[in-house]
Amino acid sequence: MSAKLDGVSIVGLGVALPPRVRDNSFWAGVIGPRDEAQRRGDVLAVERNAKGDQTAMPREIADAIAATGDDLFRGARERRVIDDETLVSDLEVEAAREAMKDAGVGPDDIDLVLVHSLIPDVLIPSNAPAVQDKLGLTRAAAWSLDVGCASTQAHLVTASALVRSGAFHKVLVVQSHAGTRSVDPKTVTSTNFGDAAAAAVVGRVPEGYGILGQWQRTDGSLRDGIVLAPVVEGRAERNWWKTPVVPELTSFDRDVGKTAGLRAGEFCREASLGALTAAGLGLEDVDLYVGNQSLGWFVDACRRALGLPIEKTFHTFGDVANIGDAAILFNLHAARASGRVHHDDTLLLYSPSAGFTRSAVVLRWYAPPAEVGA
Amino acid sequence: MSAKLDGVSIVGLGVALPPRVRDNSFWAGVIGPRDEAQRRGDVLAVERNAKGDQTAMPREIADAIAATGDDLFRGARERRVIDDETLVSDLEVEAAREAMKDAGVGPDDIDLVLVHSLIPDVLIPSNAPAVQDKLGLTRAAAWSLDVGCASTQAHLVTASALVRSGAFHKVLVVQSHAGTRSVDPKTVTSTNFGDAAAAAVVGRVPEGYGILGQWQRTDGSLRDGIVLAPVVEGRAERNWWKTPVVPELTSFDRDVGKTAGLRAGEFCREASLGALTAAGLGLEDVDLYVGNQSLGWFVDACRRALGLPIEKTFHTFGDVANIGDAAILFNLHAARASGRVHHDDTLLLYSPSAGFTRSAVVLRWYAPPAEVGA
Repeated sequence: MSAKLDGVSIVGLGVALPPRVRDNSFWAGVIGPRDEAQRRGDVLAVERNAKGDQTAMPREIADAIAATGDDLFRGARERRVIDDETLVSDLEVEAAREAMKDAGVGPDDIDLVLVHSLIPDVLIPSNAPAVQDKLGLTRAAAWSLDVGCASTQAHLVTASALVRSGAFHKVLVVQSHAGTRSVDPKTVTSTNFGDAAAAAVVGRVPEGYGILGQWQRTDGSLRDGIVLAPVVEGRAERNWWKTPVVPELTSFDRDVGKTAGLRAGEFCREASLGALTAAGLGLEDVDLYVGNQSLGWFVDACRRALGLPIEKTFHTFGDVANIGDAAILFNLHAARASGRVHHDDTLLLYSPSAGFTRSAVVLRWYAPPAEVGA
Repeated sequence: MSAKLDGVSIVGLGVALPPRVRDNSFWAGVIGPRDEAQRRGDVLAVERNAKGDQTAMPREIADAIAATGDDLFRGARERRVIDDETLVSDLEVEAAREAMKDAGVGPDDIDLVLVHSLIPDVLIPSNAPAVQDKLGLTRAAAWSLDVGCASTQAHLVTASALVRSGAFHKVLVVQSHAGTRSVDPKTVTSTNFGDAAAAAVVGRVPEGYGILGQWQRTDGSLRDGIVLAPVVEGRAERNWWKTPVVPELTSFDRDVGKTAGLRAGEFCREASLGALTAAGLGLEDVDLYVGNQSLGWFVDACRRALGLPIEKTFHTFGDVANIGDAAILFNLHAARASGRVHHDDTLLLYSPSAGFTRSAVVLRWYAPPAEVGA
């Protein structure tokens, strides 16, 4: 049976950024272009190895890194940083409010909230109840659906299936990335990290719009590559629940992390072609590719692996750096604002996640032009 | 539109318990019946107040507590405890293997895994990739869907909608509760806590079987009642991501926790009637109630609030104590083994969760008797 997820789609988008801007001057005197020792300590191992282990590096990654030239920041100019006093759920609520306004819905219209927070307010419960409460969604259930940086696709697929089933009618999906709370600010790794939240309202649209195809797979054998864990004497500790040390984004096995990173293009191609095939479409049908921007070269490497022209991609790495799974909706929002997304467009949404999951969704955008006089 | 989630149901069940048994003698000389100071420190505030603030206590809770008599352990005789060396994902995998065997499916048949772990192996990623990898589910996506102790219902509803949509065909759902890793073992609170995992395979069954109705709501205004957070000088700290202290199950606001606890019967009645109404059924149609057993009096208080006879409920609190969201599938498994669940039975599954979510599912059980000679 072929999947039936269309007739449901994004009917409103919202984003939120913390006001504090951190530009590259923050690292002046701390990280220099010759500081190879620091680059070797980077948790994002592939970039670290950009000038090293060339033999193992796929062409699309080598070319994408080369395209960033000598820029130590790989194209990132600014990123936003959440203040210690701000709750991540407040950022999520700000994005959600805009999405609800954009969709023209009120608190009583939402009956399910799906949230993923990289760094939630508290370990238990998830931020979903906080979002539900702060928005006054008194008719809603609030769930956390976490597929790391691939959560947006899972949110969209789940919301679409649930709305089609009639179990829920309008689903609010929210992703946040308080990435700066997971890394030491004076490291190469942290230059990639920014904070953001993004949200969408998912509801009924005409058949033929919404998700036309999706493809998702997890390869858990790579799960030790990127982890959030306490680090004791330079070594990531497995038992977080009894190690009294602040956790940080790190790795149990940097070789595995590098392996997964080097497969960026392969993973993107596999998932994207899977989703397009499920949709009965090909790469030539894609109007815009929007996805994860975990590193400065990442979108470009995916684009090269797919063989898409650069004008069919959109990202905001220069403005906000890596914003985790908030990237897809954030970039859709920005692309729409700059006239890059139109009614009837076929969008390819892709991101991998720590774990590792690779996950693509093909979505036909529904935003009919307002009628004259309406 | 009324919801359409049937035609999909549980087609296999599995459970796992760690081998180490902790009986009540563990607390001999540590917690005595007169130790009121310790009882006042109990994070599960309602039981603490059983003999105190009687005026605010609803009848069904007072009666249910009274029914446990003088037993300090409220009916708990034993609970299982996971060893420090064991990974929670190993317990989850053990339950999942049994569920897959019970369903007669192999690794290639599963295309989605939904996992919730109270205390996962690592903070990021979730245990879903570990379960996927250890079981060799090479065709599957692996997601974490967390609604605390109400996760099972969310897993069943989500799996049903996704299978109906055709996006996935067989979904493995897994819940685990390594509760003993979240509490100090020498406290009243810990007497309630046991460790367990439970799993189900969800797939196609004939129409009319599976989920007939569901009702889920979250009241996030109560979210500070039960939290997992670092405790510094007796006070729960909000910023776990920068507090180098092992987190434990505690509360930001014990009054809120107590309020939520006292509404146990009200919450159960609201959700159960909501799910039954959605199914077009009434309480008289329920063959068996299976739900959360967070405290010794909890199932009985829910039963009293619903007005169900005791023979229409099933729990295992005496054997395993509070096993979080693993309770529903664990108890279904045990009830089936003892001949308490039959083909065509109408099951009412309920649990609340920290957050607070209250969530009920009405499920018509599909397990046709084997044909003669088959």
